[in-house]
Amino acid sequence: MAKKNSLKLVPLGGVSGIGKNMMVIEKNNKMIIIDCGLEFPDDETPGIDFLIPDFSYVLKNINKLQAIILTHGHEDHIGGLPFLFKRLRTPIYGTKLTLGLAKTKLNNMAGSDPIEYNVIDTGKILSIGSFDIEFFRVNHSIPDGVGLIIRTDIGNIIHSGDFKIDHYPIDGVHTEIHKIARAGEEGVLALLCDSTNAEEEGYTLPERDVGRALMDKFEKASKRIIVATFSSHIHRIQQIFDVSAKMKKKVVISGRSMLKSIKIASELSYLKIPENIIIPVNKIDDFPISEIVILSTGTQGEPLSALNRMAMDEHRRISIMKGDTVIISASPIPGNEKAISNTINMLIKRGAEVFYESIAGVHVSGHAAQEEIKMMISLADPLYFIPIHGENKHKIQNAQIAQSMGIHPDNTLNIQNGDIIKMNTNVCRISGNIKPKNVYVDGIGMGNIEDTVLRDRKVLSNNGIIFISVGISTSERKIIMRPDYTMKGIIFIDNIDEILREGNKLLIDSMDTCFKENMLERNRIENYITDKLEKFIFKKARIKPIIALKVLVK
Amino acid sequence: MAKKNSLKLVPLGGVSGIGKNMMVIEKNNKMIIIDCGLEFPDDETPGIDFLIPDFSYVLKNINKLQAIILTHGHEDHIGGLPFLFKRLRTPIYGTKLTLGLAKTKLNNMAGSDPIEYNVIDTGKILSIGSFDIEFFRVNHSIPDGVGLIIRTDIGNIIHSGDFKIDHYPIDGVHTEIHKIARAGEEGVLALLCDSTNAEEEGYTLPERDVGRALMDKFEKASKRIIVATFSSHIHRIQQIFDVSAKMKKKVVISGRSMLKSIKIASELSYLKIPENIIIPVNKIDDFPISEIVILSTGTQGEPLSALNRMAMDEHRRISIMKGDTVIISASPIPGNEKAISNTINMLIKRGAEVFYESIAGVHVSGHAAQEEIKMMISLADPLYFIPIHGENKHKIQNAQIAQSMGIHPDNTLNIQNGDIIKMNTNVCRISGNIKPKNVYVDGIGMGNIEDTVLRDRKVLSNNGIIFISVGISTSERKIIMRPDYTMKGIIFIDNIDEILREGNKLLIDSMDTCFKENMLERNRIENYITDKLEKFIFKKARIKPIIALKVLVK
Repeated sequence: MAKKNSLKLVPLGGVSGIGKNMMVIEKNNKMIIIDCGLEFPDDETPGIDFLIPDFSYVLKNINKLQAIILTHGHEDHIGGLPFLFKRLRTPIYGTKLTLGLAKTKLNNMAGSDPIEYNVIDTGKILSIGSFDIEFFRVNHSIPDGVGLIIRTDIGNIIHSGDFKIDHYPIDGVHTEIHKIARAGEEGVLALLCDSTNAEEEGYTLPERDVGRALMDKFEKASKRIIVATFSSHIHRIQQIFDVSAKMKKKVVISGRSMLKSIKIASELSYLKIPENIIIPVNKIDDFPISEIVILSTGTQGEPLSALNRMAMDEHRRISIMKGDTVIISASPIPGNEKAISNTINMLIKRGAEVFYESIAGVHVSGHAAQEEIKMMISLADPLYFIPIHGENKHKIQNAQIAQSMGIHPDNTLNIQNGDIIKMNTNVCRISGNIKPKNVYVDGIGMGNIEDTVLRDRKVLSNNGIIFISVGISTSERKIIMRPDYTMKGIIFIDNIDEILREGNKLLIDSMDTCFKENMLERNRIENYITDKLEKFIFKKARIKPIIALKVLVK
Repeated sequence: MAKKNSLKLVPLGGVSGIGKNMMVIEKNNKMIIIDCGLEFPDDETPGIDFLIPDFSYVLKNINKLQAIILTHGHEDHIGGLPFLFKRLRTPIYGTKLTLGLAKTKLNNMAGSDPIEYNVIDTGKILSIGSFDIEFFRVNHSIPDGVGLIIRTDIGNIIHSGDFKIDHYPIDGVHTEIHKIARAGEEGVLALLCDSTNAEEEGYTLPERDVGRALMDKFEKASKRIIVATFSSHIHRIQQIFDVSAKMKKKVVISGRSMLKSIKIASELSYLKIPENIIIPVNKIDDFPISEIVILSTGTQGEPLSALNRMAMDEHRRISIMKGDTVIISASPIPGNEKAISNTINMLIKRGAEVFYESIAGVHVSGHAAQEEIKMMISLADPLYFIPIHGENKHKIQNAQIAQSMGIHPDNTLNIQNGDIIKMNTNVCRISGNIKPKNVYVDGIGMGNIEDTVLRDRKVLSNNGIIFISVGISTSERKIIMRPDYTMKGIIFIDNIDEILREGNKLLIDSMDTCFKENMLERNRIENYITDKLEKFIFKKARIKPIIALKVLVK
């Protein structure tokens, strides 16, 4: 493959699971990056704040880097920026709202060099390096999203961003499918297409439908109404305000991220807040409960969110009252199903009537379902089809949609994070993988943690730990400070005292053996006795806690 | 309420969440128990094997107890029996298969008194204590399920068991709705009704439809087929055998519970295995791959299940090959969604084509959807409607169905575990709650663990732990064995060494303060220094690990 006439893609995230979207595109030694997101943790990564892409490939090729382009302002597309910008500077391109959200993240960076922000004009072509980039607006669950038509000397590359096709958009801005159609007529080398909802048949319903469902619930509610939604879902929030205004209600905003998001969106005119509708939470008792709407975070059952604190009756100012109507205007992010159910069940127990997606029509997705994906493929008519933004199961479904429309299976690629994809007009293939590391962020720490840390966390959480300290004198060959036991996360068992007594005897006997057999090196003693205790505890109680024995030596 | 003419229900499980179903019914000082199940753990109970009902109410009223009656053989209905039978003996009633499954659990009880097993005859009335019990067969995701019509001197109580109404049952056994109709004509005081699928509109599809979907996938598969399903889903297993026989394939059985379940069901004639169809796993290579069907456990992404070990390439004998067809013939139990997705994604990565519920029609539920529940209510025509088997959100939906059919809201009860429900022909109300404890089982341990244990497990898993041992001499007022640090589950942070060095200095300085201020009591020293270290670590690293400081004193 002649190097000059080929184009290179390196996805640093977003194609081996949902989250931390980041795509590197290279041509003629010039590189652009599309998005730089974070990924939320799951059961396999307990206690981690989030994951970010491994930036080493970018840092190694920093001289090629021209710009980073943001498709929209969701965390999984912009949340990695502060970590990337710890290491480098490059101009950022995005629409007004997207840049507004990115700035709130980057402004907090202490002592930083200034960052160059460039507002995208979707009516113009942007020339960066070897790329002429045209943007097309897309509908999504946040305003001001775009996809990219990247014109290169070997053909057009379309990056769909996160999109749906909504014929009744709240802000009147439609997905600009005519631009995709035009690119398709010119000829499209590759379509990189959002796979998130590729398993869903039919069309994703328009956002407007949610407004109607909300109105229906609002009309039936005789007391207080609490609506939870994603803080970045400005169109949803707009509809909640509009319905509240129509019903002559007041809106209390609860939750820090909700306040922040509403502030930014209204300052940038993406949200039109009806006059005098917002009241502060401490004025809530000045109005009849039938006039109150509480707009809240907490759609995912997050322990510290406003809604969950209300459900647990731990919210400082708002207690659930019998007859409250609670509307959860969102769908579960995979992995959160149980947490959300718990929140719903607690709200019901406190006397609220709860409406949520599976029974109420109070949410629609922001991602394209199968028929919209087909429309995208049909208009773009690409030579190569590359599913992005999804787990393997989503990407495979997406590829099958393309194949059902006549794209040859060899021309649909299932790519993974770190793959090096090379394409020209003859061929598109995965030529290697840069083997990106898992980069975790926890507290102020950021690094690729040893897998042992996560494994330890799993074991700690499942089995608990027994910590034993003992002080010995090697010169006297005797125990001079007797063993002390600390247990954390160990399940109560009936005869635990007896087991510990026997275990302690085993420890003392084993220590004697060490002394007698001249095994006086601390590590050896610890390993020898730990092994004995582990076996003993498992035999007696069928549990496998971590046993951490510390022998202090004088 | 005259005691003699009232009836008492005490649900010990199954109505404050799905699982550990157990219902006590009392009349005239006679008590029967319906079911005794276990509940599987979730994120809130990490590392627990399972939960069982709190039996203390039963033990306190043991003299009233007449019998335990089992509706069917699922773990959430019989899994608690071994723990109950550690404490007491009472005759067990169940259908043949249900007793067969119960016996495998109870036979292992070492040195036990004999247990009285009684096979239910669904054609006859069973008289126990104050109750004349008629059984009606029900369709469910395990054969031989029943519901109960309990005739008392104040009226009939119907307990639906777990049911659906399948007009095309695999074994030809229909839900005996005519018996419910007859009871309804006699008059029904209360209907206790399965709520599991009360959120689902319409009808649950017949089991037969899965056979057709399986046949379709089998016909299209050119290589090996792996089908995973619940080991107790005998009708599903029957269909897998039948489709395999039709397609002239051989079946390999993988997974211990699958082997055990197939053995019991075929011995008791609930499963008809086509001749010569089963081959042992070590003969797998004697047949062309196009003739192989592997029947496996692992529908819930369980780490140790056969399917997950294949997906991880850790199965001793079976590796996934490119072109394998994997069918997951089950739906996710809430909370398992992410684990299942992970299994599916790994299978796809290894080259398998994977079919699962959301894209393939390879599973139908065993529980009644809204239209079947309406049919049950219509036939029974009860005075009181009591949703059972569900979380609050399911029970509330179920109650709303009943209300939509004209049952007065005051006559539908949302009951919780431990509630004491009293009813007569005038009134049905919750008169108190026995406050059952959470009983956890882990290893051989069983007890109501302190909530602190679960809280510790959460913190351990999210934040990790730092153990510190130090030896001091109080007489000499000095450290004689210097501090030793063990970290488990602590995320790597860039400057951890420096933080620990500073922390160690803080520890030594604080110890000096203790010596100087005559603070020589061990607990006080530990609390004083731990507090200082916690604040220091949080300030420096924004993490909140458990800090366990042990001061050994000479």
